[in-house]
Amino acid sequence: MAAPLSVPPSPSDVSPTTVDAVRHALDGRWSWLRDEIRARDDFAELRVEPGTDAETYRARVWEMLGQLAADGHAVHGFPTAVGGRGDIGGSVVSFEMLAFADLSLQVKSGVQWGLFGGAIQALGNAEQHARYLPSVMDLSLPGCFGMTETGHGSDVQSVHTTATYDPATQEFVVDTPTESARKDYIGNAARDGRMAAVFVQLWSAPEGEAPTRHGVHAVLVPLRDEDGTVLPGVEITDDGHKEGLNGVDNGRLAFRGVRVPRENLLDRYGTVAADGTYSSSIESENRRFFTMLGALVRGRISVSGSAVGAAQLALTIAIRYGEARRQFAAPGGDGEIAILDYLAHQRKLLPLLARTYALRFAQNELVEMLHDIQTEREAGGSVDEKRQRELESRAAGIKALSTWNATQVIQVCREACGGQGYLSENRLGTLRTDTDVFTTFEGDNTVLLQLVAKGLISGYADDFGHLDTLGTIRFVADQVLDTVAERTSLHALAERLRGAAAGGDDEEVLDSSWQIKLLDDREEHTLDSLVRRLRPARGKGVTPDRAFDIFNRAQDHLLHAARTHLDGLVLDAFNRACDAETDPTAQELMRSVCDLYALSVIEDDKGWFLEHGRISAARSKAITAEINKLCRTLRPHARVLIDAFGIPEHWIGAPIATGEETRRQEEAIAHADSL
Amino acid sequence: MAAPLSVPPSPSDVSPTTVDAVRHALDGRWSWLRDEIRARDDFAELRVEPGTDAETYRARVWEMLGQLAADGHAVHGFPTAVGGRGDIGGSVVSFEMLAFADLSLQVKSGVQWGLFGGAIQALGNAEQHARYLPSVMDLSLPGCFGMTETGHGSDVQSVHTTATYDPATQEFVVDTPTESARKDYIGNAARDGRMAAVFVQLWSAPEGEAPTRHGVHAVLVPLRDEDGTVLPGVEITDDGHKEGLNGVDNGRLAFRGVRVPRENLLDRYGTVAADGTYSSSIESENRRFFTMLGALVRGRISVSGSAVGAAQLALTIAIRYGEARRQFAAPGGDGEIAILDYLAHQRKLLPLLARTYALRFAQNELVEMLHDIQTEREAGGSVDEKRQRELESRAAGIKALSTWNATQVIQVCREACGGQGYLSENRLGTLRTDTDVFTTFEGDNTVLLQLVAKGLISGYADDFGHLDTLGTIRFVADQVLDTVAERTSLHALAERLRGAAAGGDDEEVLDSSWQIKLLDDREEHTLDSLVRRLRPARGKGVTPDRAFDIFNRAQDHLLHAARTHLDGLVLDAFNRACDAETDPTAQELMRSVCDLYALSVIEDDKGWFLEHGRISAARSKAITAEINKLCRTLRPHARVLIDAFGIPEHWIGAPIATGEETRRQEEAIAHADSL
Repeated sequence: MAAPLSVPPSPSDVSPTTVDAVRHALDGRWSWLRDEIRARDDFAELRVEPGTDAETYRARVWEMLGQLAADGHAVHGFPTAVGGRGDIGGSVVSFEMLAFADLSLQVKSGVQWGLFGGAIQALGNAEQHARYLPSVMDLSLPGCFGMTETGHGSDVQSVHTTATYDPATQEFVVDTPTESARKDYIGNAARDGRMAAVFVQLWSAPEGEAPTRHGVHAVLVPLRDEDGTVLPGVEITDDGHKEGLNGVDNGRLAFRGVRVPRENLLDRYGTVAADGTYSSSIESENRRFFTMLGALVRGRISVSGSAVGAAQLALTIAIRYGEARRQFAAPGGDGEIAILDYLAHQRKLLPLLARTYALRFAQNELVEMLHDIQTEREAGGSVDEKRQRELESRAAGIKALSTWNATQVIQVCREACGGQGYLSENRLGTLRTDTDVFTTFEGDNTVLLQLVAKGLISGYADDFGHLDTLGTIRFVADQVLDTVAERTSLHALAERLRGAAAGGDDEEVLDSSWQIKLLDDREEHTLDSLVRRLRPARGKGVTPDRAFDIFNRAQDHLLHAARTHLDGLVLDAFNRACDAETDPTAQELMRSVCDLYALSVIEDDKGWFLEHGRISAARSKAITAEINKLCRTLRPHARVLIDAFGIPEHWIGAPIATGEETRRQEEAIAHADSL
Repeated sequence: MAAPLSVPPSPSDVSPTTVDAVRHALDGRWSWLRDEIRARDDFAELRVEPGTDAETYRARVWEMLGQLAADGHAVHGFPTAVGGRGDIGGSVVSFEMLAFADLSLQVKSGVQWGLFGGAIQALGNAEQHARYLPSVMDLSLPGCFGMTETGHGSDVQSVHTTATYDPATQEFVVDTPTESARKDYIGNAARDGRMAAVFVQLWSAPEGEAPTRHGVHAVLVPLRDEDGTVLPGVEITDDGHKEGLNGVDNGRLAFRGVRVPRENLLDRYGTVAADGTYSSSIESENRRFFTMLGALVRGRISVSGSAVGAAQLALTIAIRYGEARRQFAAPGGDGEIAILDYLAHQRKLLPLLARTYALRFAQNELVEMLHDIQTEREAGGSVDEKRQRELESRAAGIKALSTWNATQVIQVCREACGGQGYLSENRLGTLRTDTDVFTTFEGDNTVLLQLVAKGLISGYADDFGHLDTLGTIRFVADQVLDTVAERTSLHALAERLRGAAAGGDDEEVLDSSWQIKLLDDREEHTLDSLVRRLRPARGKGVTPDRAFDIFNRAQDHLLHAARTHLDGLVLDAFNRACDAETDPTAQELMRSVCDLYALSVIEDDKGWFLEHGRISAARSKAITAEINKLCRTLRPHARVLIDAFGIPEHWIGAPIATGEETRRQEEAIAHADSL
């Protein structure tokens, strides 16, 4: 018979207090709200059996959404004036926690309260708030967010739907001119929505003049009556079956001369007077558009939080399984080896665990920033435009990183659980398919990274603009020196000499200031060289074709610049969390995870660091060795690290992660012993 | 309004003859069979609507399987003596082509004919062939392949199910001792299977003696009677809903003292006489086990082929969409830009297209090798053990690469199609979920790479063993020089000097012999250094714990060694295909794709090449620039390159890839013109 099985390895000697301390750090400012939601004992029932057919699934999600509404789950983010709690950050956190229940329910709630309600809140006036928001919160007015069109998803400034003002009746006439102008993938449209915030090109003019276009605005268009019957002029089709999220009723909307009253325009940033005169506090159409988009930034931040939550759940399942599951005889025939004891398995899971920690801290800071800025604005304060731009840039970048992270983490976790991971009962497959769309909705990730990079270039131009002559000369001199250093690998040589002087050991790689400096240096160099590459595009006499070509040839460089910036930002957030930790054991543990994150970032891009002489070959190898060492060091603490995610036992659900595998191993040991 | 749209860019000027030539090259030795299957006009109907509930889906797959059986789809691989065609390679190719229809149908057919039928064919005797194979082929005997257990998937040599011979009745008694010994994830078990080839620890002894264990063997166990009623002592449970492949009825099997006649042992490699005496032509239990596994290698090769096919389909959809879909205004306001014209989009898709080409050629060679070896053996010829081992190693390695490739390719294609890619009608989501399990079934990919690496180490030891004294000295000297060269970066220095002498241009990176040499050198160095690291584990007095620790600490190195070996093998296959091409335009095109593949492999591991002084920083940057250039060069030919996959129009199915997007763009252009 096969060798008998041994007992599990001794667990981490970290105390429960430390677990609590790490959990508290991960929970961030809204830890009280997380605990409140964790304590809900009905939460695990908010999940639909995998394989449920789409119609039943949609009906069940609708029912659960009503339950959440009745429980007051929706109130967090809405203004106190209309019965909300006025807690923007809390609304993001409460949304995020739904990732542990059912992702269709989560997305459906996001459509209703985050997008539809959020659009009225951000773009509407006080009267509109009072009129609509209470029924948005209590779900008596289910609604849609009609921005994306079949033909325009990333470039929503170019949507083709029109709303033309008719001064004679004081109505807007809403039209869908072509098939590609249909509103598409609209959640709540196929089954439940009664109204939609429809993004249109707005046309109007004072009576007697030919209408002119004022750019994109949102207008509220009723879709169905109280009985659910679709209204005249509205055409709704079902988007049909999707890879995941089949509890959400996505559909397509087309409008054939649908008339809505003038008061239905969400007019915070631009309004049409009764006579058809358009006015706005923002002169530039372009700036107005981006201001409106900026006001809707919460959606992107919410998706990002959900992605981090989904990754935490997947890691919890895979690491618990990795500790319980044993395969291949242990050395000396003493039982079988827990698969998490293999370096290859640690290498799969632990750097991703570290990155998920890092993104959690970055996400928490992002939510705080959103909360502070929007709360300040709601209170009537003026918000510095630079801070708002910084918020939008971070929201775009962190959303891209955390949704790609979720896709990769869940995939790796699925594979790390083998065939068991493929069974729906173990949740990883459903997590994968439900979150897959996160990387391309609320902004396509590649487009979002471009947005980040463009922000960096503008910021760079600003900085450069402020330099005096001497500053400019110094700047240019730095560039030259940098280039020379790189060519002759002086950096690497210097580093090698330092290494030799220090006796060849490589403690420095665990020095967080070295890690930060290395990432900062990469960011600076990448951005500098990007700007140099793009500069010719701004020259006189450059044709648009040529300018596009210059830009396009540097697109990979541009995306890399965005990543380098975001890596630094995420590492900073992690370091701040470590610095703020007061429990010394918790801090030590977090520092090791942070080291693993930082070194993994460097290793992933070691080609760049070597190419640019930033690390020597010996240092590069030392980093790989150190990552392996950190995997070994953190292995006994893996369970502690996932316990600190604070996912209640009954939320985890997956049998392979909640004792089934352990019970089977024990039975097999007992059987082997009895032979 | 938004800028008007322009007409699509001029298509590739490559002639249809060239497309045919490339297709012929990709089709390989069984191109006639591929054409035969392409001509089947019922093939596109072999697909089940996404979202179909599991029971209906299973019923429909069963029905379609009957249709395939009736059409003679099953006969290819079976011996002519029982009515088959004796065409092993043809059986793999015909299986692979089902990937374009429905993957549940494909996997179900693979269970019936490849695994169940294949086990009887490979492990059974002539009488068993005659008795069972005709009804396996015509589906009157639906069967299962009972190898995996809940507790043992990767380590199947340790399965716990037993079959103990009872000389009194001349029967085997089959037992499942524990829950983890259940046969699990067994296709055909939950609904349709009547019999299973069950892998057991075989126990027997001459009458009167205590039974002894003879290792793993397969025995045929009836599961259900003609009416489908489960037989006494057999327990079948349903594995339930899965992430994908829900048309396949996976289940769990347990046996409680089930008795089967002595003749049910598949006894080609080991038999039990009536009195209970065990005999085998292979003395070592270990060697016997691996010989049996080796005889079943076709399953792994079939999955690999299917993965390549799925990747080809995904690329066909995404590249067609990338040509049709336009987003963001073109320079000068002249329409919108086709997304495949963005470098970032090319960078996402074209290197993966190149890798899929490469894997197609490697897969074709693998199928030929399998066919030649197994045909030779069936004809009674003796097969060199080294060739058989080489076949198994390649099957393991190519299967790992091509299934990971499929996972990545389909994911990237899904994202490249945005929200449209998430709709089931566009097939990418279903392709992803159905193929996801490929990376962990028929061998977990990480375990398979270890198998490849271990083979390399054994081969290395063999080579070393054959060296005479002078050879050994030379070998050691090479190692030393190598190490010195690396330390002082002589390699890089020499390369820099060569680059300078050549005037600094970098044509060499497109020289295929340089590419091959670089990959060979990496493989050799990685293996050499791996062997040096592992050597201490073989020393005298090393405890098993210590030996395991040495091995485990080098596990990432080991996996890297396997990859370096496989990269070289795949590149060789691509180069051979290029060399063999007689149409000069086709050859030129294929060479460019091959360059893109080779340079992408180098870029992906540029950290290693730089670390080990194999390329200079300047060369490394030149490679990145060359990849971007190849993307630009190949962009106009992207459609030709996917057309050469030869997937008939009505098999593609996805509306976004078959004219819908183009039609919408044209309507939008017409609308814009009319304004």
